[in-house]
Amino acid sequence: MSGPAVFVGPVEQDGLTDAVRRGGGTVVPRVRDAEVLVWTGGSLAGVLHPGVRWVQLPAAGVETWLPDVDAGRVWTSAAGAYAEQVAEHAVALLLACTHQLHRHAAATSWQRRSYRPVAGSRVTVLGAGGTGGRVTRLLGALGARVVAVTRDGRPVDGAERAATLADVAVWTDTDHVVAVLPSTPATRHVLDAATLARLTPASCVVNVGRGDAVDLPALLAALDAGRPGAAGLDVTDPEPLPDGHPAWAHPDVLVTAHSANPPDVLARGLAARVEENVRRWAAGRPLLGRIDPDRGY
Amino acid sequence: MSGPAVFVGPVEQDGLTDAVRRGGGTVVPRVRDAEVLVWTGGSLAGVLHPGVRWVQLPAAGVETWLPDVDAGRVWTSAAGAYAEQVAEHAVALLLACTHQLHRHAAATSWQRRSYRPVAGSRVTVLGAGGTGGRVTRLLGALGARVVAVTRDGRPVDGAERAATLADVAVWTDTDHVVAVLPSTPATRHVLDAATLARLTPASCVVNVGRGDAVDLPALLAALDAGRPGAAGLDVTDPEPLPDGHPAWAHPDVLVTAHSANPPDVLARGLAARVEENVRRWAAGRPLLGRIDPDRGY
Repeated sequence: MSGPAVFVGPVEQDGLTDAVRRGGGTVVPRVRDAEVLVWTGGSLAGVLHPGVRWVQLPAAGVETWLPDVDAGRVWTSAAGAYAEQVAEHAVALLLACTHQLHRHAAATSWQRRSYRPVAGSRVTVLGAGGTGGRVTRLLGALGARVVAVTRDGRPVDGAERAATLADVAVWTDTDHVVAVLPSTPATRHVLDAATLARLTPASCVVNVGRGDAVDLPALLAALDAGRPGAAGLDVTDPEPLPDGHPAWAHPDVLVTAHSANPPDVLARGLAARVEENVRRWAAGRPLLGRIDPDRGY
Repeated sequence: MSGPAVFVGPVEQDGLTDAVRRGGGTVVPRVRDAEVLVWTGGSLAGVLHPGVRWVQLPAAGVETWLPDVDAGRVWTSAAGAYAEQVAEHAVALLLACTHQLHRHAAATSWQRRSYRPVAGSRVTVLGAGGTGGRVTRLLGALGARVVAVTRDGRPVDGAERAATLADVAVWTDTDHVVAVLPSTPATRHVLDAATLARLTPASCVVNVGRGDAVDLPALLAALDAGRPGAAGLDVTDPEPLPDGHPAWAHPDVLVTAHSANPPDVLARGLAARVEENVRRWAAGRPLLGRIDPDRGY
């Protein structure tokens, strides 16, 4: 018995066809013969046909493909497949900002700097998917107390408290904010002039989700006004950040150029996810990372 | 019943007299009336008298005071009192070096960089006192596999393996090295040209113990030769690192100017240690951080 017929493309990536086979699928060379697409490109306009029952997209954030996402078939993202490394990068950025490593890195003279340890601090984590959940657990191991913010305020493993964005205490009763949000109309500019003004001078803001969760001009103005104290941004709006943008020269901003997911690590994570999802599809079990078109992720 | 007579000085520090009282001691204004010294200064030459039965020193590394340390009374350091924050700083430096945050911090243009996650990597931790033990546990939470190196190779909680410096595998079978060593003749230049040459191009070297564990000119030469790949140094030899020293300008070196223990955090840690040790002394129980004059820490 052969598994599902899977097209991998338009560009084959390291190990994806192998992953399909390990998961029990049969790789087919043409889209028109495929029941499943493991899609590595951009827009799917003109590619889909009624026989395609499931599309696996290659990214955790799928705003690019949302116009293609229809209700007649299953769509999955890679959400959570890169959680471990993105969470580690988020923690690296938070520790760098709190310990002022960006300031030390720029120094050419011996100058001691104080810092407030993350241990014992309060951190608001915005978003509690795979990555946000892992960030929460890592911060717990460091001794931080996490408030986990989700759409519905559900309890999150390892968080001291759960909340929604409507809860003003997620800004006023915290030391730091780590954003791990998808790009949706509801998450756009969650960190804007109003919310940033509620943070403290020692606060650090970290963003490893999507750039538009942060109103970047408002952030730079807030840093200049003294609160928050620093920001570590793996993602920006606009992205890539153009040469000459004031964020590059700002002494309290550390930009890491969407490097939380380096391509080699990303390829491994996607292959593992594809293998697992093909196996689940073949067995009729629920897929990981299923997209809800109404939510947008 | 009054507790031990304790002199705090020569400079009173925030909260130390309060800490002595909370621990059950009586603060006395003159050294000659004291059974216990909580010493906040440098050399004790000419200060000690036969009635002083115990001296609490203010630092974790006590090489400065070793000429004063005699066998006729009890000497304690603050070793371990700052473990939580110094360990956090060590992890911050390791994550910064592995995720290339020092390179990102210097960038003025969008450039993605790859990295190898600490999760799944092997880390040699040199020294397993309070700080080294805490580093080991934090790295375990991040998913690293730790080899803990001590004088006697004893098992260390959270480490996958225990070893001594005589074990060449602590250099050859590892990804990164974190040094949390006191300054003694046995630890001087543990990281020298020979041991550094055994590391890999992706290796990071972190030092948060004492600067002379690392032969700094040898480290800079090794970085130039391509292995290890980066270094995060909170301590240096010489220290402070003079202006114009080539380490300042080296793109693979991040120096944090002995900031793992910021003064305010240090004052809190020392006060907590003094309170606990005075309480133990009054009750006749063993003190924390007792110095062995033969070991030198």
